[in-house]
Amino acid sequence: MESAIDTHLVCPRAISRRVPDEYQPPFPMWVGRADDAVTEVTMAYLGVQYRDAADRAGALEALRTIAGLLDNDADHHDLTEHTDAAGYVNLMVTGYWREPAAFCSWLRSPAVTEWWNSDDRLSDGLGYFREITTPRVDQFETLYAFRDNLPGVGAVMDTISGEINEHGYWGSMRERFPLSQTDWMQPSGDLRIISGDPHAGGRVTVQGHDNIAIIRSGQDWRDAGAEERSLYLDEIEPTLRAGMDFLRDEGQAVGCYSNRLVHNIDLDGNPVDETYNIGHWRSLEKLERWAESHPTHLRIFTTFFKVAADLDKLRLYHEVSVSDAANQVFEYINCHPATGMMRDAVLGQPAE
Amino acid sequence: MESAIDTHLVCPRAISRRVPDEYQPPFPMWVGRADDAVTEVTMAYLGVQYRDAADRAGALEALRTIAGLLDNDADHHDLTEHTDAAGYVNLMVTGYWREPAAFCSWLRSPAVTEWWNSDDRLSDGLGYFREITTPRVDQFETLYAFRDNLPGVGAVMDTISGEINEHGYWGSMRERFPLSQTDWMQPSGDLRIISGDPHAGGRVTVQGHDNIAIIRSGQDWRDAGAEERSLYLDEIEPTLRAGMDFLRDEGQAVGCYSNRLVHNIDLDGNPVDETYNIGHWRSLEKLERWAESHPTHLRIFTTFFKVAADLDKLRLYHEVSVSDAANQVFEYINCHPATGMMRDAVLGQPAE
Repeated sequence: MESAIDTHLVCPRAISRRVPDEYQPPFPMWVGRADDAVTEVTMAYLGVQYRDAADRAGALEALRTIAGLLDNDADHHDLTEHTDAAGYVNLMVTGYWREPAAFCSWLRSPAVTEWWNSDDRLSDGLGYFREITTPRVDQFETLYAFRDNLPGVGAVMDTISGEINEHGYWGSMRERFPLSQTDWMQPSGDLRIISGDPHAGGRVTVQGHDNIAIIRSGQDWRDAGAEERSLYLDEIEPTLRAGMDFLRDEGQAVGCYSNRLVHNIDLDGNPVDETYNIGHWRSLEKLERWAESHPTHLRIFTTFFKVAADLDKLRLYHEVSVSDAANQVFEYINCHPATGMMRDAVLGQPAE
Repeated sequence: MESAIDTHLVCPRAISRRVPDEYQPPFPMWVGRADDAVTEVTMAYLGVQYRDAADRAGALEALRTIAGLLDNDADHHDLTEHTDAAGYVNLMVTGYWREPAAFCSWLRSPAVTEWWNSDDRLSDGLGYFREITTPRVDQFETLYAFRDNLPGVGAVMDTISGEINEHGYWGSMRERFPLSQTDWMQPSGDLRIISGDPHAGGRVTVQGHDNIAIIRSGQDWRDAGAEERSLYLDEIEPTLRAGMDFLRDEGQAVGCYSNRLVHNIDLDGNPVDETYNIGHWRSLEKLERWAESHPTHLRIFTTFFKVAADLDKLRLYHEVSVSDAANQVFEYINCHPATGMMRDAVLGQPAE
């Protein structure tokens, strides 16, 4: 049994754990481990948005363009599709870099800047967004019910841990963050529109704030047999969807800025048997309060408790991060005004 | 907003809270407050046990005798009935004292000792037990969704608090214990039979251990209108009963020594519209793990979350305590061997 917090990230605690030292988890779970040299990772959600089916071919072409820009650069990426609360279809490339300098070079490369800044982006009839955060290694945690071919940020980690202690109780997510040893990871300020006007379309930039929390929680039943497909599709998925739809449509009241249950696709837009949810939250605390009190999430949780020890090919996991405002990019081009961080952002600079 | 921990019991923390300072509970709840002079309270569960309906009259007479012994002495008592997992009926007087000296005098008074030690107790065809703990004021917590006529230990408190902060999240029960500021309240040793033989009947004494946790959680719908009666009886009670039956029948595996969902009665054995559950647990941690992961309890919890702010005459509350082994009494006379602490007690002294 080992700690979810990697040895080189352990420090004297200012904040204690919630459970006594004797705590034993009820079933095994694992976390990703990165080489000590890794100090930050970049997580980029790069989107294309359209409403009319006639625009799908162009949107897929744009998706392939973005994927092409990442191909020889990002350390890992995947492709997804989802329909949002306003009825728009969103195609996304999600890219991960394990070196901030490499991501910076990519973002500032002529190919990327010319494409993003081109007037064509304003006139080609599609919406675009990029939501990018770069958490330090003490600002994110992972949790896998399996040990091979880690998805998401796990794909840019180096190894998988042994069985870890910090799981199976409310509060364990927070305790897997190395930063939780000394910091409450509370939010600073509000989301703010710092350029553009969401209702006018065009280019809009949103300024984030410290400790926006992002959770990616994934489900992969590509290799599942009949029994696990049924467990997932009949028992877990309907409740998961109900919970994620609630957050998509009514999340603002509980501190959820944006929630997208996305379906993985191939380069031609064909779905594969893999989904994940991406939620942006005002704070880890808001995420905790919702997760531990909402009936849909509690039902998912108790189902997972029942089946966790026996999972075979059904792959369930999550990754959660917070980040500093300085390490966040939220930019939109011609997206509808409730897209991403725009929905809950207020206009103008904060009062000093 | 005030802390559940009374001002004179606040001390420098060795163990931090689970939630950030900014935490705001989702609805109001209150706790009992005792005068600073109160240092300990005694909670006594005094039982009469029988199996055959023909013994009911005698058992009720014994119940009245016990109640009579408390009448001018204990600061508060109530009467209950429940049928246990072995099919025996148990009548209980639950008494509370707010002065340890007063309780001690009572326990050692000729009237009590002569009655308890009499050979008649061995031969009158009934079972008897007394399960008594005396927690210090830093070793218990209360929580009420109402503010008047506090039941249980609340009846020996002096006042009700203002709205308190520590509720509405997993871990808040522990954080309402003043002792949680500095101590994990972990168990020492095991339950042990230190005299007698449960399977032979007769007199049996069980030695407890530090930090056995006792939860009394109550439901009082005596004054509820039609809507709240239906909320309780149709929506809450069936799930509550399923959860409590699980603990009564299968609790051993999760660290629950004994669980009794008891119905309040009058001196003639007639039920009133009030129940409570009394659970004895190996530790507060075991109680926490069960409460926050078992589907029945999570369902009760989410229902309570939905209705808490609107409760009128339906009274829901709980009190939880731990105690030192030295301040525990677990004694049985002619009870069946799975009664109370006997079921999970091992024979003989601990290996040193």
